[in-house]
Formats: sequence, C-alpha cells, structure tokens
Amino acid sequence: MTMMRRVWRLARRPVGEIAPGDLSFHEEPVAEPAEGQFLLRVRYLSLDPTNRIWMSDMEQYMPPVALGAPMRGGVVGRVVKSRKAGVAEGDLMAGLGEWADLILTDGQGLQPMPEIPGISLAAAFGTFGVVGPTAYFGLLEIGRPQAGETLVVSAAAGGVGQIVGQIGKLKGCRVIGIAGGPEKCRFVTEELGFDAAIDYRAEDVGAALDRLAPEGVDINFEQVGGPIMSAVVRRLRLFGRMPLCGLISIYNATEPPEEPGFWTLILMRRLTVRGFIVTDFADRFGECFQELGQWMLGGQVKTRQDIRPGLERADAWVRLLYSGGNFGKLLVEVSPE
Amino acid sequence: MTMMRRVWRLARRPVGEIAPGDLSFHEEPVAEPAEGQFLLRVRYLSLDPTNRIWMSDMEQYMPPVALGAPMRGGVVGRVVKSRKAGVAEGDLMAGLGEWADLILTDGQGLQPMPEIPGISLAAAFGTFGVVGPTAYFGLLEIGRPQAGETLVVSAAAGGVGQIVGQIGKLKGCRVIGIAGGPEKCRFVTEELGFDAAIDYRAEDVGAALDRLAPEGVDINFEQVGGPIMSAVVRRLRLFGRMPLCGLISIYNATEPPEEPGFWTLILMRRLTVRGFIVTDFADRFGECFQELGQWMLGGQVKTRQDIRPGLERADAWVRLLYSGGNFGKLLVEVSPE
Repeated sequence: MTMMRRVWRLARRPVGEIAPGDLSFHEEPVAEPAEGQFLLRVRYLSLDPTNRIWMSDMEQYMPPVALGAPMRGGVVGRVVKSRKAGVAEGDLMAGLGEWADLILTDGQGLQPMPEIPGISLAAAFGTFGVVGPTAYFGLLEIGRPQAGETLVVSAAAGGVGQIVGQIGKLKGCRVIGIAGGPEKCRFVTEELGFDAAIDYRAEDVGAALDRLAPEGVDINFEQVGGPIMSAVVRRLRLFGRMPLCGLISIYNATEPPEEPGFWTLILMRRLTVRGFIVTDFADRFGECFQELGQWMLGGQVKTRQDIRPGLERADAWVRLLYSGGNFGKLLVEVSPE
Repeated sequence: MTMMRRVWRLARRPVGEIAPGDLSFHEEPVAEPAEGQFLLRVRYLSLDPTNRIWMSDMEQYMPPVALGAPMRGGVVGRVVKSRKAGVAEGDLMAGLGEWADLILTDGQGLQPMPEIPGISLAAAFGTFGVVGPTAYFGLLEIGRPQAGETLVVSAAAGGVGQIVGQIGKLKGCRVIGIAGGPEKCRFVTEELGFDAAIDYRAEDVGAALDRLAPEGVDINFEQVGGPIMSAVVRRLRLFGRMPLCGLISIYNATEPPEEPGFWTLILMRRLTVRGFIVTDFADRFGECFQELGQWMLGGQVKTRQDIRPGLERADAWVRLLYSGGNFGKLLVEVSPE
C-alpha cells in the first residue's frame, strides 16, 4: 500500500509579502525507506522569519529553496520506519526538514531530540530548535552583557526576543523590549520580568527610549531593521554592541531598501556590529542546551509558544511573522502525538 | 626676560575644508613653569586626519578644541625647564600637546619617549606616537588576520596604512592597498611588499578588486569612507571583519553625508564592523612598541615620514591630509634638534 504525505512546495518566489499561490499544497506518494533512510512523522513545524529569505533568491546564508522543491523548515517528529543504522522506530528527531507531515530522509540535518521531563515537547523544540541558541549565543557572545548595562531587544515577545530579554535580566541588565500592542508589552514586563516595554504601534520608539534610557543603550539585539533599528542605533552608547540577528522589516521588500548607514556613529562611539546566524555556533549548542535548559527547569526563563493547528494552513500562519500576528514562538501542530 | 612662543589657535570652526583664517597664528609670551610644571620645546608636530574632527563640534570621541584655544596635536620635544618632580631638562617627552613650539604643561597627556638606537626620532615618534598602535591593534585585535586571507587597506601609503599592510604581510595575508597616484601605488608594492595596489584616481576600485580579489575580501581596514569604502564592503566575504579606523572622506562634509548602510549584507555574510580609536588600547601600547619596534629594527616593517618644515605653515600642511597630498606619516619640523 502506497503511503501518502502532505507537503508544501515552493511554486514561485514571492514578490513582497507571501501571497496565496506562492506555495502549493500537495498530497503525494512517499516511497518506502531505502537502506540508510528513515521516515519521520512530523509533530511540529517551526515557522521562522528566515523562511521568507529561503523563498527568495536574495543573497543569503544557505541555498534558497529551489522552485518546485518542498519548502524547508525546522521540524520535530518521530521515526515511523527506519532502515538507517542507529535510528529506530519511535525515536524523536529534530532539525531541518520540510513543510510536510511525512519526510523521507537520510537523516542529514536531523539530530536525536532528548525528551526533558518537565518541559513539553513544544517548549523544548520551540526553544532549543532555533530560537534558544540564537538568543543565547547572540546575546552572550556578541552582546556580552555586563551587570548594570541597558539592553534593548526588538520583537521582544517573539521566540528569540523573549529569551534574549530574560537572559539579559539574569546577567543583571536593565532590559527594554520593543513589541507591537499592549498585550505583548504587558507580557514581557509582567510575565517575563523585563524592566520596560515600548509599544512601537502606539508610541515613537526614539522618544520612548529617551524617556526610559536617557543615558543610552549598551546593547541592541536587533531583529527588525528599518526605522525602529535606526532609533535604537542612534542611542547606542560608547562601546555599544549590536548583535544583528535579523531584519524582518525588510524581508518582504520588493526593492533593496534604502538602508541608512551609521558609519560615523560606529566610529566615534566605537560600536561593534556583528551579523550572525544561529548555525555559526552549531559546534557549541550543547553549552546552550545545558544552561538554558537549567534556567527553564528552574523557572528563570519562561517561554511562550504560539501553536497553530494544521499543516494545510501553514502558508497563512507563516505570514503572521511579518505582520507581528504571532505571540511567542510560532509552531504548527502537524500531527497529533 | 619674557619667553615668547609661537602657537596656532582655533579662530573659528571650519566649514567644509580647513580655510585660511580658521586657525590663527600668534606670537605670545609664555610664563615660567610653576611648581609641578615644565616647559617643552617641540621638535615635531604630528598632523593627523582626526585634527579636522577636533576643530569641529561634530559628535566625537574627545571634547572639541574650544574656540580661541591652542590647537591640539601630537608632539614630541625636549624639556627646557622643569619644576616637576621626575622630569628633568633635556628629557624627551611625547604625547598630546599643542600646535606650538613651546608648551607649558603639567605633563598631562605626555610620556617619556625612549630614544631607540637605529630608529630616527621622526620615525619613532611618527610611528609610535599614533599610527603604529592604531595599525597594530586595529588589524590584530579587530581584523584578526589569518594566513591566506585577503586584506584591503585604504589610504595605503599614509601613516597607518603602510604599517597595516606590512603587518598583514607578516601574518601571511594577501594585501591590496588603495592609494592615490602611481607613485604611492609603486611605493606600497615595491618598497613595502604589498601584493597589489589600486590607484583610486585612475581606476574603478570595485572593478580592480574584482580583478585582484575575485573571491572577495576577508578584512577591510577602513580609513576613508564614501564610495571607496562601499566598493570594498560589497566584496567582503563570509565572516569578514572591518576595523573602522577613520572616515577621512567625510570629515570636511558641510552636511551629514548620506551614508549607505549594508545591514542586510552584514547579516547575511555575518560581518563584524567595529569602530575604534587608538586610545581604546592605551593600556596595551607596550605590546605594540615591543613587537612593532622589533619589526622596524629587523627591517620587516618600513615606515615613511613626510616631514614638512615650519610651524608657521602647519595650517597648510594639515590640509594635505584631506587632498591626499602627503606621502607617508605627516610631521611638521617645529624646531631644529
């Protein structure tokens, strides 16, 4: 009996926002595992801002998804059939896969996922899959927070931002989050313990920073780009650091955006700006899993997932990321446990 | 008998290029040293791109020179009278002083200058005063050159550039200098051993880089800014580094220049951009003097000074820096030995 799977393929490269028809949903047969392969049933699909980059052919850090190919995405799931040595039916595996409910794979890009008592699979995968190491290494290695410093994080209620801010608090920083809407602002201050939050939809970010951080900002953990970034950069202090993690505000741009430079300011204030991608730190992920896992178990770092049902609606869910419609780490529940 | 000195004072803040009348030349009495003071006869005055910054009231890394105050500059000279403990007549002192032939000082900003057999005072002061540590720490600490990498240095025949390129060669880099005119280009390749030079007055820098470094640039030691910088930045490779040392092309700007940003590129290629000022490394200057001094004595690093006569023409000499008219580290011979 032929097994069928459901899968999203990249039908055409989006122009501007992802539009209906850019991705196409297919029901198609999936072959039996050959020697060295296994079949993974996906439980959660991770949706991340970088998905939009992969759909485009802009300069990027991995090959773009080929037209017609299955859309790439972070996944966690259980092995349902295996002909690969060391991988058994029932094993939990996570890593880079496809927007699909069944994936036939030789295992490249996938690793065993430990089950952690006290942490749900959604929280563990949602945190350790991508956003946890991004927040951990970006802040600690590039931001280098010192007690008493002021840390600003944009997209503060999102997957990465919530962890950045809480680690910043653990390191003794004054943490200011930037988020859209009163609910997210309340969440990061009241639930996560940020010192302050700026609702960029309701107030001018620059004016709010002048009020909340009159002496300026030591670390800008940047995920957004555009005018919000500029407002923070202008307020960076001497020897300020800027881990550049993402530029979500421009991923949908149809023309290369005019990007204001701040070279004079970088020189005079001796700033450090460093772009990074989570995989740059792949050989050190263990450190993050260890320490961040302890913080989560100890309740010092809380994480919020935004779990949406149904692979067949993934093309709608992914767009939430670019409109600020998600609240926490965005996951799609692809299959029941 | 009252001693007289000659001194340049800042009469008004330049608009655009430094113009006659921005600095005023004075002959004026200088008092006898009081307790804790000494009188320094300046032998060489160092002229540096940053002088233009100090004349302005743009955001900068030290207080600007006050209107009417003596112009600030790097100096070396001998103590002619001292009432300061530990400082004796005849001592050689160097550091931050004034554009003057005699300076009455409590010694702040000045340090004893060792005389090094085999290195002339002009070369020692010209190199160790400012440009040597700038090149040394900027390249080694921020650029982090690895053997086999490609290093580009702008203002290559200038005080900092010539040292950056030669240290790059010592570290096994392929070194490409950017300079104005065939004479400077010949100097950096034939005298200093750079692998190649680009005459920005005669050829398109981007096209030349595509020819000389088709696989891109690992380190951009930036001193110039503007379109030349943009051409290099666009060709930075994955994990490229950019020590940002100066932006001489914009110091004369009458309006804040439009600075193109490269945020997407910094992110995707995971570049590190870091602004610095030589004094950021002041507590480690000893390391530089030790190692760079050995290289100079061993002939592995050569330095060229451009020594111009006469303090009374310092306001003309300083302008050479912004037109590319100097060839080597620019010094003014203020007094005979």
